[in-house]
Amino acid sequence: MSKKPGKIISSPTAFIGVNGNGIISFGSGQPDLPPPKEIFKDLGRQRLFKYSLVQGDKKLREALAGEYPRAKAEDFVITNGASEALDLVFRAIHEMHGPVKVLVCRPYYYSYPPVIELAGLRIVYTDLKEGRIDLDDFKKKVRGVKAVLINSPSNPTGRVEALDTLREIEKITARLGVYVISDEVYKDLIYERKNYLIKGKHVITVNSFSKTYAMCGLRIGYFYSRDPKMVQKVIDIKVHTSMNTSTLGQEMALRAMKVPRKLVLSQVAIWKERRDFIYRELTAMGFHLWKPEGAFYVLPKMKNSARVVSELFRDHGVIVYDGAWFGAPGRIRLSYALNLPEIKEGLSRIKKYLKGKESWLR
Amino acid sequence: MSKKPGKIISSPTAFIGVNGNGIISFGSGQPDLPPPKEIFKDLGRQRLFKYSLVQGDKKLREALAGEYPRAKAEDFVITNGASEALDLVFRAIHEMHGPVKVLVCRPYYYSYPPVIELAGLRIVYTDLKEGRIDLDDFKKKVRGVKAVLINSPSNPTGRVEALDTLREIEKITARLGVYVISDEVYKDLIYERKNYLIKGKHVITVNSFSKTYAMCGLRIGYFYSRDPKMVQKVIDIKVHTSMNTSTLGQEMALRAMKVPRKLVLSQVAIWKERRDFIYRELTAMGFHLWKPEGAFYVLPKMKNSARVVSELFRDHGVIVYDGAWFGAPGRIRLSYALNLPEIKEGLSRIKKYLKGKESWLR
Repeated sequence: MSKKPGKIISSPTAFIGVNGNGIISFGSGQPDLPPPKEIFKDLGRQRLFKYSLVQGDKKLREALAGEYPRAKAEDFVITNGASEALDLVFRAIHEMHGPVKVLVCRPYYYSYPPVIELAGLRIVYTDLKEGRIDLDDFKKKVRGVKAVLINSPSNPTGRVEALDTLREIEKITARLGVYVISDEVYKDLIYERKNYLIKGKHVITVNSFSKTYAMCGLRIGYFYSRDPKMVQKVIDIKVHTSMNTSTLGQEMALRAMKVPRKLVLSQVAIWKERRDFIYRELTAMGFHLWKPEGAFYVLPKMKNSARVVSELFRDHGVIVYDGAWFGAPGRIRLSYALNLPEIKEGLSRIKKYLKGKESWLR
Repeated sequence: MSKKPGKIISSPTAFIGVNGNGIISFGSGQPDLPPPKEIFKDLGRQRLFKYSLVQGDKKLREALAGEYPRAKAEDFVITNGASEALDLVFRAIHEMHGPVKVLVCRPYYYSYPPVIELAGLRIVYTDLKEGRIDLDDFKKKVRGVKAVLINSPSNPTGRVEALDTLREIEKITARLGVYVISDEVYKDLIYERKNYLIKGKHVITVNSFSKTYAMCGLRIGYFYSRDPKMVQKVIDIKVHTSMNTSTLGQEMALRAMKVPRKLVLSQVAIWKERRDFIYRELTAMGFHLWKPEGAFYVLPKMKNSARVVSELFRDHGVIVYDGAWFGAPGRIRLSYALNLPEIKEGLSRIKKYLKGKESWLR
């Protein structure tokens, strides 16, 4: 499969599903590692082809409840990836509270602004400082909103928020009655410390099987909330907008959860090796970037980023994403969800392209 | 799996996924017949686990294009069932035209009103006459709307619209610049004549693999439009709200399409036998109902329908749906997507319950 986007590349949509023809893609954030082999076996059982509970398979929700302290199966809804979980949560907030405001950290994952606006909500931005939440600005802006959306480890910054920051956010929002929507799809890909789970009835955790178990294409995600009204509202919407999430995908997710934890940990070791490699190489090439602490992205500075994205793709067969798509103009985003030989080849093409353009890296 | 809804049953949501414990369900509209066995084989290929085109697998869209005259692969978007197709279409209309009105035939499939309102659109109803579109009323009301939603064969009426009616609607809406959203998920389950496909750039066809191939739980549907702007708008929304539809489900849908057509036809023969049986039996029991011409539903008259739904479930283990949930108060809806012995057992329990309540059937 190959598809050449036109000359002006204005969003990542043009690159999704683009591969082959010797293209090296630092674009899409999907693991190249395979999913656990256990999930494929004996899938032909007929019950998988029937409608099932809109909330999601009970066994899968019970397994998830085991991963969160004091959680119960009824606190979860299984969704078509984390994307649908976010979409449903914002629609539910609109149904319950009207066109309220949502505080979003910038740079952000590129779907955040459209999914919030599609739900009829309004966005307030807080700009990150060196890729981390600026608590002073956060505290000022949180007073005017009904929900905040945080994402640690972050796509596109690769940063992990400090424990103190997360605890402070947990406290402030609880006091103000503001929802915290915590997108934790990279929670199992942290290199510096363990994930910290923000707690409380006002917290809505969004997660996915895509990254941890390399199951992106199957689109199984979920959300977790200890507020029964929020859970019920989401189910009430989903019954009309998509019904149950794929029964087969849910079965595979359940099997993935039963795979020994050491598989996930062994993959984190691979990600860390790649992180170390790409950070060292990019720094040596003169790039200015934050050292990633989680997920699999780097967001180095880059002048003329739109031109760089277009020329790298057209002339060198390398996909990188424009930071502007993530609210980070003057930067590019590289995913290092690639094996080392591909990362090396991609970086060597970028190096060749950048010859004589060293001033663009500042 | 079994789940007893509380005493007041106010929507079909309470019954979705409810089975076991000797319950006979005339509720959910899903085939009991198995899907084609060919779709299970050799599903472990790694490419199925990667993100893929948001628009849907190209081979699947090419196969679908072969089913519609002059259609091209790029006219289709593969979705999480027909539900998501409808949700995306209404959201796209809202994005392009603002909070316009949609004309809906009543009785309607129960998700129509919420999915239209969730998208921020407004509803105008035209009441069916004996389960069919009343063209006089339709012509009056179509002048104030931007889109009309039709569903032939219909859930919950089981009726198929006359060819002349469909051609007239095709013409009026084309002249007025009104979208026709044609929900054709039952197009392969017609007992009286072949399906008539409404044509034109203003027509949006919504369909699904759920009914034809008994794949409800896999949630693979699609929409087809010859208006490239509509197609692009839907893709632009879906990339943020759910991304690609399950790669594995799409692969299975593609395999289902390659199964010889005679399998589908042989299943239609089974449906027709059940249709004849339940229509004859219900009529003999004193029910007043329209003879179904397609799909697998009957919508007989029933006084005190809410009480009937609740008592049949609680005291007799039989699920039927309240007509009120479909905009048809004073009726109940029975799906006959069951094998004949189960239909017989269910009807005999209903007969027992109705003893002495014959006046409720008028």
